[in-house]
Amino acid sequence: MVREITLDNIEHLAIGSAFLGTGGGGDPYLGSLLCREAIAQYGPVPIVRPEDLKDEDNVFVAAAMGAPTVMIEKLFSIEDQHRAVEVLERFLGRTATAIISAEIGGCNSMMPVAYAAMRGLPIVDADGMGRAFPALQMTSFNIEGVACAPMTIADEHGNSVLYQTVTGLKAEELARPVAAVMGASVCMSCYPMTGAQARRAAVPLTLSGAIGIGEAIARGGDPRPPLDRLIDALRAHAYYSDAAVVFRGKITSLERDTTRGWVFGSCTISAMGGADAATGVAEVRFQNENLVVHVNGELRGIVPDLVTIVDAETAHAIPTERLAYGQRVAVVACSAPPILTTPHALDVVGPRCFGLDEDYVPVRDLIGECA
Amino acid sequence: MVREITLDNIEHLAIGSAFLGTGGGGDPYLGSLLCREAIAQYGPVPIVRPEDLKDEDNVFVAAAMGAPTVMIEKLFSIEDQHRAVEVLERFLGRTATAIISAEIGGCNSMMPVAYAAMRGLPIVDADGMGRAFPALQMTSFNIEGVACAPMTIADEHGNSVLYQTVTGLKAEELARPVAAVMGASVCMSCYPMTGAQARRAAVPLTLSGAIGIGEAIARGGDPRPPLDRLIDALRAHAYYSDAAVVFRGKITSLERDTTRGWVFGSCTISAMGGADAATGVAEVRFQNENLVVHVNGELRGIVPDLVTIVDAETAHAIPTERLAYGQRVAVVACSAPPILTTPHALDVVGPRCFGLDEDYVPVRDLIGECA
Repeated sequence: MVREITLDNIEHLAIGSAFLGTGGGGDPYLGSLLCREAIAQYGPVPIVRPEDLKDEDNVFVAAAMGAPTVMIEKLFSIEDQHRAVEVLERFLGRTATAIISAEIGGCNSMMPVAYAAMRGLPIVDADGMGRAFPALQMTSFNIEGVACAPMTIADEHGNSVLYQTVTGLKAEELARPVAAVMGASVCMSCYPMTGAQARRAAVPLTLSGAIGIGEAIARGGDPRPPLDRLIDALRAHAYYSDAAVVFRGKITSLERDTTRGWVFGSCTISAMGGADAATGVAEVRFQNENLVVHVNGELRGIVPDLVTIVDAETAHAIPTERLAYGQRVAVVACSAPPILTTPHALDVVGPRCFGLDEDYVPVRDLIGECA
Repeated sequence: MVREITLDNIEHLAIGSAFLGTGGGGDPYLGSLLCREAIAQYGPVPIVRPEDLKDEDNVFVAAAMGAPTVMIEKLFSIEDQHRAVEVLERFLGRTATAIISAEIGGCNSMMPVAYAAMRGLPIVDADGMGRAFPALQMTSFNIEGVACAPMTIADEHGNSVLYQTVTGLKAEELARPVAAVMGASVCMSCYPMTGAQARRAAVPLTLSGAIGIGEAIARGGDPRPPLDRLIDALRAHAYYSDAAVVFRGKITSLERDTTRGWVFGSCTISAMGGADAATGVAEVRFQNENLVVHVNGELRGIVPDLVTIVDAETAHAIPTERLAYGQRVAVVACSAPPILTTPHALDVVGPRCFGLDEDYVPVRDLIGECA
């Protein structure tokens, strides 16, 4: 059991959350630099399990919002994150006793660690997505009835905005254009929760889960290919256990459009024949995060299940904004945390919420043919 | 000296502030309906002179933000205004002791009266513009160093947003897109001030000034034409005294574009000959408010001086959104409050701030030829 985030396991967290980020959540490498610096300065960050939270704990979210294509050029600072949390604390008249990630994806699982280090607070072994999603209302917090607002965003110039909205969707609608004006990359705090709420509404054990997945990918001295180790680690996990490589090949086409504060696009991967035996093409569509993968026109994985494009050799996830023509990749699909796949949850994070014209089919029903 | 706003003088305030609104600030008729209802329910609103404010008074702005073309279709409510002020009070931990208008123009001089009635608070005989302007940073408050933020906006669905920004211009930049998403018409509170700050930074005596101007226009039993009475009232005022009719004619062309939360456009007025002796055409350009008037290509009035298009018969101001082809109108120009015309003030409210390519020339230097 991992009890704290240290300079030794921060890299595993970065690698694992890049995978769970399904292409989004910002580049974890940049986030890990921020974490290293914060842990070196303030010390390791204790991990608190959701079940150990006290009812009256004040759990504050630390998160980034924006287009990943911008985030790789405009770095975050703990100070901006602090301003977002501080404004919310001041408004609520409560002080954070623990920090939680909104999404266990990319930069958004790293920044909260760095921020918790600075505040001397524990970080909760849980998050609001069990993966990454491109919009604020797409959280287990929202699905379980925790309000997104009051919510704050802050930029790097000292400006901050506090929202009180009647729905999470409205918070998203009102925050996204401000994030765009602020430069398409901002720090935020939302879904302020008591410990009791966090126990009920968070996806538990995703922080330690990400560290475990990252450790499996990065493990030295293990003779098996990293991709096999990744699949094994997923299959051993409580949620991500329906896992398979659904395609291998080379990126042969890529479209990306950074607009309205997001990056939209698709990536075509063509089989290279040989030992992998795969033929044809796979197409992955994304909105910050990968949403759906089709192989030769057939569905192989769709939100809220996870679809991640990984380097064929190293099994490291490739964020949306790092995809490039010619990369040798594998597409991995795995099951989502069950809290995301109930009929009620699918109204919030199902395919239709992303404008997709297909119904959700659990990955376990899709991967039999190709596992 | 007017000591309170009552059902008897609310109409004069509406008529006078329509004139001072120079085409913007929203339709005062709708605002006056709101005021009548509030005064009927809660009683008259005491007027407090700026010099009678105590240092420690908490002066809160009540205002509307949006495109006037939308405001005439989407009515404001005191409840939305209250939410904007309430969020700001809660954030600051201070309770309003007086209400002030951001601009003495159109709806924006009426809503604060209705809101003050509901709160049982006095309204300050002053405002932040001495007229109306289309952007948040364009106030004497800002010119005199009072911060625009913390600032709040609220819509009619229960959503509110609180801004803390490093400049008034940034508050404008971040609020305008949210106002647009909220439907291009919202209630707000900004520039929270102490009594001491309001004494220094507000344009004094504009509320009573507007009532005086409105009374002059509306006065029954006076045989002189309303337009003459208007010019006389302006000339008798402390600030607006360089006043003249710069053109008379008929509206022959009109362009209006509601975009980015404002209405931009221009209005061409053609002379009808006859006794008025005017010839040629006048062109008035506006951004919510009228910005500049040229007669036969020559400058006759330019921001921050006031340019108002009034009905040729009644001398009632015609708001931007009510301009129509064929209307018989007069264009009146008059001097701005001196606090708006210092070199420092012109950096905030001068012609260049509106994208105009001309320098400010005081109306007194322009009207000699046509007064």
